[in-house]
Amino acid sequence: MREDTQLFDVVVIGAGPGGYVAAIRAAQLGLSVCCIDDFQIDGKPAPGGTCTNVGCVPSKALLVSSCLYETIEQKAIDHGIEVSKPTIDVGKMQARKNSVVRQTNDGLLYLFKKNKIAYLNGRGSFVFADDDGYMINVSEPSNSRLMTKNVIIATGSRPRKLPDVDFDEERILSNTGALSLTKVPKTLGIIGAGVIGLELGSVWKRLGSEVRILEAMPSLLGFADESVSKTAYKVFSSHGLQMEFGVRIDKVENDGKRVSVKYTDKEGKKLEMWVEKLIVSIGRVPYTESLEPANVGLKIDERGFIEINELCQTNLPGVWAIGDCVRGPMLAHKAQEEGRAVAERIAGQIALTNLDLVPSVIYTEPEIAWVGKTEQQLKNEGVSYKVGQFPFAANARARAVGEVTGFVKVISEQDTDNLLGVHIIGADAGELIGQACQAMAFGASAEDLGLICEPHPSFSEAIKEAALAVNKEAIDI
Amino acid sequence: MREDTQLFDVVVIGAGPGGYVAAIRAAQLGLSVCCIDDFQIDGKPAPGGTCTNVGCVPSKALLVSSCLYETIEQKAIDHGIEVSKPTIDVGKMQARKNSVVRQTNDGLLYLFKKNKIAYLNGRGSFVFADDDGYMINVSEPSNSRLMTKNVIIATGSRPRKLPDVDFDEERILSNTGALSLTKVPKTLGIIGAGVIGLELGSVWKRLGSEVRILEAMPSLLGFADESVSKTAYKVFSSHGLQMEFGVRIDKVENDGKRVSVKYTDKEGKKLEMWVEKLIVSIGRVPYTESLEPANVGLKIDERGFIEINELCQTNLPGVWAIGDCVRGPMLAHKAQEEGRAVAERIAGQIALTNLDLVPSVIYTEPEIAWVGKTEQQLKNEGVSYKVGQFPFAANARARAVGEVTGFVKVISEQDTDNLLGVHIIGADAGELIGQACQAMAFGASAEDLGLICEPHPSFSEAIKEAALAVNKEAIDI
Repeated sequence: MREDTQLFDVVVIGAGPGGYVAAIRAAQLGLSVCCIDDFQIDGKPAPGGTCTNVGCVPSKALLVSSCLYETIEQKAIDHGIEVSKPTIDVGKMQARKNSVVRQTNDGLLYLFKKNKIAYLNGRGSFVFADDDGYMINVSEPSNSRLMTKNVIIATGSRPRKLPDVDFDEERILSNTGALSLTKVPKTLGIIGAGVIGLELGSVWKRLGSEVRILEAMPSLLGFADESVSKTAYKVFSSHGLQMEFGVRIDKVENDGKRVSVKYTDKEGKKLEMWVEKLIVSIGRVPYTESLEPANVGLKIDERGFIEINELCQTNLPGVWAIGDCVRGPMLAHKAQEEGRAVAERIAGQIALTNLDLVPSVIYTEPEIAWVGKTEQQLKNEGVSYKVGQFPFAANARARAVGEVTGFVKVISEQDTDNLLGVHIIGADAGELIGQACQAMAFGASAEDLGLICEPHPSFSEAIKEAALAVNKEAIDI
Repeated sequence: MREDTQLFDVVVIGAGPGGYVAAIRAAQLGLSVCCIDDFQIDGKPAPGGTCTNVGCVPSKALLVSSCLYETIEQKAIDHGIEVSKPTIDVGKMQARKNSVVRQTNDGLLYLFKKNKIAYLNGRGSFVFADDDGYMINVSEPSNSRLMTKNVIIATGSRPRKLPDVDFDEERILSNTGALSLTKVPKTLGIIGAGVIGLELGSVWKRLGSEVRILEAMPSLLGFADESVSKTAYKVFSSHGLQMEFGVRIDKVENDGKRVSVKYTDKEGKKLEMWVEKLIVSIGRVPYTESLEPANVGLKIDERGFIEINELCQTNLPGVWAIGDCVRGPMLAHKAQEEGRAVAERIAGQIALTNLDLVPSVIYTEPEIAWVGKTEQQLKNEGVSYKVGQFPFAANARARAVGEVTGFVKVISEQDTDNLLGVHIIGADAGELIGQACQAMAFGASAEDLGLICEPHPSFSEAIKEAALAVNKEAIDI
């Protein structure tokens, strides 16, 4: 061991949502903790991972700004508000977004300090394992060596690229570049109509881009409940998002001024799309190579995911892995739940997580959110179920606010009435889903959910009514 | 019995939130139902009661419009949105509000029809009781007589006036007039800093009124948790609402152009306030005289409330009363819960309501919402408790949206950790409280609430973190 090697009870590799929660929870439980993360912004350490730096947080900042722009442009007049056509200063919008990100980075640095967690900026990788534990190397700028018995790997994921098409982040953009555009592109192509494609497409569409989305799957949001995806398709189309499904991308070329996308449409016709900027959002892949897993024999599957059991244990004793670099949905809150649980397990506690109760949210307008099973899944599994649906058009708050698109759909088991899934498209879906998550975590029935006294007027009443509708007891429809 | 007397299983007097829910639920359960309501707008029947016509619904419509106005005026620039100073066309804003109200009226008329409920426009009153049940008179325009064994009284409340000061709805305004102003008053006085005063004060303040609020109580929102009221006072003051507490109103005079309010301040100094318009929002009183209760011997207490037991039964067999005209908070959703329960009881079912779990919401900016006990109440009751608090400034979505004021506070019992109260001031409080209502209804502990997997980023995470903070396990503070 080098003389300057530092010893820790736990070393967390990655300070994204999974890693930082694991680190803080472990510290709360009395363990000495080091958290390693290599992200930097403008040469400064920027903990928080993809979520904070180039994901959830900055996208929400831009979604809010662009939504306000669109509201002023299109809806103010309905309220009797007279105002000039707005213009957007993209630099200022981006500066606001950057400051939101920086606040979050700084918040995490404060939390590390407060919890006496050693935070090291640099890339963490395995050097060797011996009877004393694992030696971890931390690259520049930290350039240090650590020894620990417990490692939590939370290295996250990175954008999947098209074969032979690199992200230059200038014209061919991943989430990183798409979040940092300095002006509104006249034309914006998006390959992949998933969460990232829809959210970033919405941002730039609202600000004036002509947005065209090409998607390989035969329909929008095939993983969501069909009733939700159908409504989403209708609404997004009416907003002017152009979407084509069942396409195959043949070739992407960047001539330095524009990007050409040659593709085959669902009828087999060869087509070409020219755009000023192209976002490639075709999924994400686990980010695990830089760990140098071979140095310690860490098992990684053929797709790059670290192999773990139900408790997030890898094949190596004392080495755990959580978040995007392991199986399950690539979502910040899923990583956080795993991070908390693993820290507690290292401290000798029993801790549970339930991947079936991890909610999904898409922060479009209207928002989309769900938890549990879709009708399609239940049909495939042969489960008998009941459905209750309540439209926001019949909700008093939605009418007062003027956001009447969408519905809440509650699914429960035919015989027991136990909740199986809740699907929401509409105002505040991303917050309302929390109630559904809680009800399902508490093992509630649709009847239970329908008996909650919700405030009036509130969007939450739509959950109550949808739950009542399951047993044909809704009042307002 | 007159030949044209109609017979019903249930007659509901009042089509506000309590009455219409009771009527629909009774009809769902197979009873023949008549619902009587005398509200009209522009000569047309307008079911929905105070809530729909001159309360929750129109106030939320104006709150949304005025909030958008203020956002454009004050916050758009932070997002890089450049736009002229907005002007408000109050007529158009009011037309939008009226159309929201009309949609709700029409929705109820549709629901009555769909559920085969006879809806009669007119004032319902008792004529006599005999062995066949109760004879109910319905005034013009319906002008009919009904006979029924079961009456649900849901006549609601009306604004309390100052002694000797009538509402002319021109200069001295109740909620009705305050919701219908045709231009923004330069100066607006408000007597009473309760929910209505704060909401309507906010509306006109945002649109440019100079607003002064006089309140008899020694501090703002004395019935809310003290930490919430203190934050509210600080925030509303910083928004420019002028508030004076501990005042006594001595005389109100309306000279046809302005209103003078002579009052004594908390130091005993005699002062006078001149305003263009004055809102008097000093509470509401039950609306029960027009029922002609003496004709059947219905017991009404000295404050005008109909006396009922826990099940909403009055002193008369088969006569029930719910909502604002009985004890308990004067809130639409409380009336709705009672309405549902009474309909089910008439149909022979067992139905429970729990007044302790009725949430309160104030739709100011930020919103305020709570359910359960305040710290003051628990101290007075000698209950040992624990508190967890989480500031929205540490919440990722709040930072992205730019709404970082306020906090979530969770209170649980010292020994059992059972939830006793949740208090929120901040973004989306009126929706977040639904989760707290549910958790308390399900008998959850703070620990249970802290274990819910909430989506990231969401305001809902602030509930989770406040719940974790109760047992010193919060991550982000």
